[in-house]
Amino acid sequence: MPEQITLYTCKICPYAHRVELALAEAKAKYTRYEIDLTNKPEWYAHQVNPAGKVPAIAYGGPPVPADQPSPESVKIAESLVLLEFVADLFPEAQLLPSDPVLRAKARFFIETVGAKITPSSFFREGGSPDDFFARLEVIQALLPTSGFAVGQYSIADAAITPSLARAHMRLENDIGPWKEGESKAVLAVIQSPRFARLYQYIKDLEARPNFKATFDKEYFADVFKRRYGNIRAQNQ
Amino acid sequence: MPEQITLYTCKICPYAHRVELALAEAKAKYTRYEIDLTNKPEWYAHQVNPAGKVPAIAYGGPPVPADQPSPESVKIAESLVLLEFVADLFPEAQLLPSDPVLRAKARFFIETVGAKITPSSFFREGGSPDDFFARLEVIQALLPTSGFAVGQYSIADAAITPSLARAHMRLENDIGPWKEGESKAVLAVIQSPRFARLYQYIKDLEARPNFKATFDKEYFADVFKRRYGNIRAQNQ
Repeated sequence: MPEQITLYTCKICPYAHRVELALAEAKAKYTRYEIDLTNKPEWYAHQVNPAGKVPAIAYGGPPVPADQPSPESVKIAESLVLLEFVADLFPEAQLLPSDPVLRAKARFFIETVGAKITPSSFFREGGSPDDFFARLEVIQALLPTSGFAVGQYSIADAAITPSLARAHMRLENDIGPWKEGESKAVLAVIQSPRFARLYQYIKDLEARPNFKATFDKEYFADVFKRRYGNIRAQNQ
Repeated sequence: MPEQITLYTCKICPYAHRVELALAEAKAKYTRYEIDLTNKPEWYAHQVNPAGKVPAIAYGGPPVPADQPSPESVKIAESLVLLEFVADLFPEAQLLPSDPVLRAKARFFIETVGAKITPSSFFREGGSPDDFFARLEVIQALLPTSGFAVGQYSIADAAITPSLARAHMRLENDIGPWKEGESKAVLAVIQSPRFARLYQYIKDLEARPNFKATFDKEYFADVFKRRYGNIRAQNQ
């Protein structure tokens, strides 16, 4: 029986979102504490994560308010470490398959494609979407013919969902540093036969109850619109 | 009972060395195949690891010579993926503790310090060793008062041993881009009370049978001497 879990997270952060997906998938009971990354509480780095980043988990220890963490709880940081931790804490959720080969494939998927999406220059600076498509090709090539990254749902899927979903939402809502309306053509490529397998995978990820419970599309569209609205205004 | 394991590796490569340490610790039976990284066999990228890097494992499949890999074996790459894979294949070797918190600590250690040593500028370009010492402080701060990274020996130790041992060997043998003799003072700092805990850890790692079986000090000293001998000659 796992002990108490307090997750320090931030809605906007894709790394923190990974852990929320895994916890939701495992139907874990936990306390969620939102950290404002633009105005972090003073106690956070001292008492939870010296790196000052989210996500982090305070595990075990006495029952305390999340903003008064106990020195007796164990503090764990780094999203990929936490994905494995959640898989270890809730073995019945099968967040990693039991076959060592499939476990290795899940970890290879994370290592290889985990950070493939968001750094593509199209999303940062606009311009040609070719580097974005190249990254999508890498992901698509690793997918089995159906199902999730290694067949059954696993932490590999939780690791990549946040960046795929953010990219998808931004294309659908035309939110980025590119010229107004430009995302339509990019989205059409993703929905074309070239990316048929990948697009099915994205739809499968987004249909998952854990995704619906942790991704507030309208909130994101709003935050990103403000962010990129300014950039477009500057570029004009 | 694990199936056949063929490890594609290279004596000089610290990433490949990680996996050799884990396999030795698990007393695994495996076929070792040395890849000459300066002259890779043509079949390697096609039939084993498209990235062309070591380490990689061919797992299972029919008995074949290592230089004629079967399409039926599973090919797995990336040193950290392979460390977890070896831990999963040989649970009795306890390469990861069974307690989820200790497993998370082992993975956090790997994530945080795994790549801390070799990139320090002192080893690449010479000059001040301060960045090297700063990295050692980070490692030392994570160590428990005795024993290995999380107490019992684990993949966290296998992950860091290659770079710590290479740094140690180079300091002992004065092999680097620094001025001749300069490593003596650096080694003295590591052996001083400031790094007492870390130096004990290095000695514990190097006393381990798996280390002795996988690290040929004289071979390394010879290879590195040739590499840095040239750099010193150029700098003079």
